[in-house]
Amino acid sequence: MIILGIDPGVIFTGYGVISVKEKKPFLVDYGIIEIDREKGLPERLNGIYKRVINLCDNFCPGALALEEIYFNKNSRTALTVGHMRGAVILAAVHREVDVFTYTPLQIKQTISGYGRAAKEQIQRMVKLILGLPELPEPDHAGDALAAAICHYYIARTMGRVNRG
Amino acid sequence: MIILGIDPGVIFTGYGVISVKEKKPFLVDYGIIEIDREKGLPERLNGIYKRVINLCDNFCPGALALEEIYFNKNSRTALTVGHMRGAVILAAVHREVDVFTYTPLQIKQTISGYGRAAKEQIQRMVKLILGLPELPEPDHAGDALAAAICHYYIARTMGRVNRG
Repeated sequence: MIILGIDPGVIFTGYGVISVKEKKPFLVDYGIIEIDREKGLPERLNGIYKRVINLCDNFCPGALALEEIYFNKNSRTALTVGHMRGAVILAAVHREVDVFTYTPLQIKQTISGYGRAAKEQIQRMVKLILGLPELPEPDHAGDALAAAICHYYIARTMGRVNRG
Repeated sequence: MIILGIDPGVIFTGYGVISVKEKKPFLVDYGIIEIDREKGLPERLNGIYKRVINLCDNFCPGALALEEIYFNKNSRTALTVGHMRGAVILAAVHREVDVFTYTPLQIKQTISGYGRAAKEQIQRMVKLILGLPELPEPDHAGDALAAAICHYYIARTMGRVNRG
């Protein structure tokens, strides 16, 4: 079972790919989808769309995990991130990959056992769970891995994942 | 020259298609892309994407016009509309239709000559310009037609449109 996590941002979109073997998640790949800020919105959206299509084609994930996001202040940022999320979700649909979203509370609770855990604590737990030599960098990539791991644990308890 | 205007909303997305003949815009079609609210976000996004792909295939527009949106209050709405806009823009890119965005001020100014015109005034001008028998309904469809007309007038002055 391969799970693709994506964390879309205004400038950088993080991705993380994990595989599950013998009931344990392992790192496959993680990184950043960089978007040329000089390009117009249509080209940027299509850039993200094509990269997510590529990730799906390369790793054949069984699920795509995204963080549910809530904005309290900046609705301009919310609109921009909404565009990016739309492109990510459409790419998944077009590769027939099921999309699952989790609230920040669910991700923090699932990964660290504490719903109000700090971002650094989550990154340390991601490092520990996947046995990484260092903290996942940058943040967006770490958040994408956290979403993927969260999906694995939650889906496992709901019987949605091969227990391989 | 065919211009497709789209006004994406949380529940309804309006569309309007105009054609330009002898330097005058004419109505081709307008209406609403209805999305099944019972469906999940991926299906709803793909529903809008496919309808915009269909509109592009049916009418072969030379441009897609969208209103730039600003939200002062509700960032949750901004995120949702951002998803929908992302799907609309991607569909246009995938059919090689250029996307143009206009601020509400530009649309109001171009159509009614007054940047603070009321919504009803804009709808009345859309009716007048296109010679419609009645006001375009619902609002989202009227706003989509307004965006398309605005693109025509602005692009014409910038030499971007065939002058028929």
